[in-house]
Amino acid sequence: MSQSKIITPRTLKGFRDYLPEAAGPREALLAIARKVYRSFGFRPIDTPALEYTEILLGKGGEETDKQLYRFEDHGGRDVGLRFDLTVPLARFVAQHAGELGMPFKRYHMGSVWRGENTQRGRYREFLQCDFDTIGTESLVSDVETLLVVHTLFDQIGLSACTLRVNHRGVLAGVLENAGVGAEQGPAVLRALDKLDKIGPEKVAEEMQASAGVDASQAQHILALPAIVGDRRAVLDRVTTLIAGSESGEAGLAILRGVDEGLRAAGVPEGALRFDLSIARGLDYYTGIVVETFLDALPGIGSCCSGGRYDDLASLYTKQRLPGVGASLGVDRLLAALEELKLSVPGAPKGGVFLAFFDAQRGTDYLALAQRLRAGGVTVELYPEPKKLGQQLKYADRRGLRLAIIIGDAEWQAGTAQVKDLATGSSQEVDQADLLALCQSEA
Amino acid sequence: MSQSKIITPRTLKGFRDYLPEAAGPREALLAIARKVYRSFGFRPIDTPALEYTEILLGKGGEETDKQLYRFEDHGGRDVGLRFDLTVPLARFVAQHAGELGMPFKRYHMGSVWRGENTQRGRYREFLQCDFDTIGTESLVSDVETLLVVHTLFDQIGLSACTLRVNHRGVLAGVLENAGVGAEQGPAVLRALDKLDKIGPEKVAEEMQASAGVDASQAQHILALPAIVGDRRAVLDRVTTLIAGSESGEAGLAILRGVDEGLRAAGVPEGALRFDLSIARGLDYYTGIVVETFLDALPGIGSCCSGGRYDDLASLYTKQRLPGVGASLGVDRLLAALEELKLSVPGAPKGGVFLAFFDAQRGTDYLALAQRLRAGGVTVELYPEPKKLGQQLKYADRRGLRLAIIIGDAEWQAGTAQVKDLATGSSQEVDQADLLALCQSEA
Repeated sequence: MSQSKIITPRTLKGFRDYLPEAAGPREALLAIARKVYRSFGFRPIDTPALEYTEILLGKGGEETDKQLYRFEDHGGRDVGLRFDLTVPLARFVAQHAGELGMPFKRYHMGSVWRGENTQRGRYREFLQCDFDTIGTESLVSDVETLLVVHTLFDQIGLSACTLRVNHRGVLAGVLENAGVGAEQGPAVLRALDKLDKIGPEKVAEEMQASAGVDASQAQHILALPAIVGDRRAVLDRVTTLIAGSESGEAGLAILRGVDEGLRAAGVPEGALRFDLSIARGLDYYTGIVVETFLDALPGIGSCCSGGRYDDLASLYTKQRLPGVGASLGVDRLLAALEELKLSVPGAPKGGVFLAFFDAQRGTDYLALAQRLRAGGVTVELYPEPKKLGQQLKYADRRGLRLAIIIGDAEWQAGTAQVKDLATGSSQEVDQADLLALCQSEA
Repeated sequence: MSQSKIITPRTLKGFRDYLPEAAGPREALLAIARKVYRSFGFRPIDTPALEYTEILLGKGGEETDKQLYRFEDHGGRDVGLRFDLTVPLARFVAQHAGELGMPFKRYHMGSVWRGENTQRGRYREFLQCDFDTIGTESLVSDVETLLVVHTLFDQIGLSACTLRVNHRGVLAGVLENAGVGAEQGPAVLRALDKLDKIGPEKVAEEMQASAGVDASQAQHILALPAIVGDRRAVLDRVTTLIAGSESGEAGLAILRGVDEGLRAAGVPEGALRFDLSIARGLDYYTGIVVETFLDALPGIGSCCSGGRYDDLASLYTKQRLPGVGASLGVDRLLAALEELKLSVPGAPKGGVFLAFFDAQRGTDYLALAQRLRAGGVTVELYPEPKKLGQQLKYADRRGLRLAIIIGDAEWQAGTAQVKDLATGSSQEVDQADLLALCQSEA
């Protein structure tokens, strides 16, 4: 090969590599999500990264259009990279409805791409991890969606979190009773969504400025999120605010059902509360909405969000497909776990290091390593007979716990030195006892 | 929402959806690969789907250029979708070498995209599943690469397969001794690669026509793949063909080491054989090369291929980085398993179906389902109190094995009807015994 110019190795702005230290925990987190989703009967699907632009932008607003990675393919087709997993799900369900049957419960883990401004630490490629139940309006599916989220955080080791749940019908009922017109609703909810960040006074101001409601209407609306307390008490106090509103009363009945269902399923009172300020997006969700906050790090925002929608795939089929689901914020959760110095449960440990100490014994090391692996032990055999210090430094850097060192004398005697890389202590054991030792320690 | 025109739901030509019936086994297969790779100390990495075109095409030939999904991004950058995981690995290792340390053992599972002709049943998006050991020329790594492949197929339940292994140095030595010039080599190897398909006579003809060797040279070269038999016998017979050639003798020594190492590690003689016709690509591999064929379906081609290379990342760094690895053909393997009517071991079973039979008991069903899940059972609760026949049809279609049916009378009595959906037989059990029954049966 010619000594040509070196191409500088670099990634695109907004894109990143995952080194093993980051890829390992992510893999472990996805494994937990998979296990939890499956335990409720959700099944995996996958869809292409590239779709017709017509499909992707069918529902898009201006924001989506601008962010889409869009180009013309070899066949002159107008194509783009998916920017979420919801649009592909809608297209998928519309296309395969007959084959899938309803209700259809799926999970989907995959990368999505958005040409966003990267200044706020956002990435242009990120992983989504969604689950949804399509084709039913059942309260049971609402409850199970929340149960999945609760179980997920519990299994990740983050049971100190709170699901904040609301129902869009309750919000609508309060707006209705406040005399807010349908055309004012979106601006009111946009203002309400900022409650956590800017407080009730500024929200009231914004409602008046941007939605054109008056001060007493704003106060009526803000009475809703001011209701806090245990779940039943909150629902009781909401009753008067939505009295007479059909959508409000229907929404409240569903929140009562959610409360009962979760209690029956053994979810502690504190794990989920009704937070009547949660609006989540403006016109997509129509029923329950949920956000999930870590008690130790509420400031990082919701780590798992979702809700119920009326009609998933109206752009692609005449069949009405209601659904409910949520999306796990994988990157945000991993960042939170790192900040909290927690590791993902079940993340594979490094295993055992086997030093290549005696240059003449390559095949013996191979045989030993394979024997230990057959017993379920992860074994990393150093590939070359380098200096022992260099090998142990490598093992330490990899975070391996035990190093097995066998030189000529040990081969003769059928023994091994086993070094604990954390404490530095060593012990000599019979090679026959190595498997049991590794199984218990690594 | 307005009753606008329906957009026909469809995927791009050469792309496909994975329904649960296909996505489930794929997920199970990847889980096995992950487990096996890890047990040898390989660790996961990930890289972006999009890279600078300059990076992707650095090594490309005309074929790659034509197939690349390439476009200009929002920032005016010339970018493309990765077409394999090897180029990104080279860029990754060059970029992070200091942080990674050598040797570096990684696996990487991810989609790649090629705008290929789809006529031969090829897809334009497919999953690659590679593992490599970078930064060492050790024979141990060659042997471990083959051990990984062997273990992988064993764990997938396809132990009836054969690794066919060769060494590029042995091929080079034979060409050298046949008096074939360096410039003729590639055309000779291209012809040799067709031996399985067109037989020795046609290969000899092609060698003469396209590489310009004479008939006796072609015969000398074809003597090599004519050598078959057990591993040691093959190597003994090769000796005379490569005598005096430095690269030939070095290659033969490595194959001898491979033979010894695999024997020491307990790999049966029949699981791997030396096949001296395997050339695998023309200038990428420089040491051992391997292809893996299923004994029951040799015609589908190699399901896992790889080899050793001299220098992975010469385009991106001056640091010489030799390596060895292989790539699992996930799609091909899944197709083979389907054709052989085998299922992937460890693929999750459907679990237990819980009918929603008594409309008043929604919370009781939720509570029961959650109790069973806490015991490790996958439970799919039907979300609505539809007709039982319809619910059981749904359960059957999902491939679920057991259905639990509890109506008002059973709730009163604390019992449950448990129906085996395969046989149609039912039994009545105490609800207290359900968990143990489900754990043992589903």
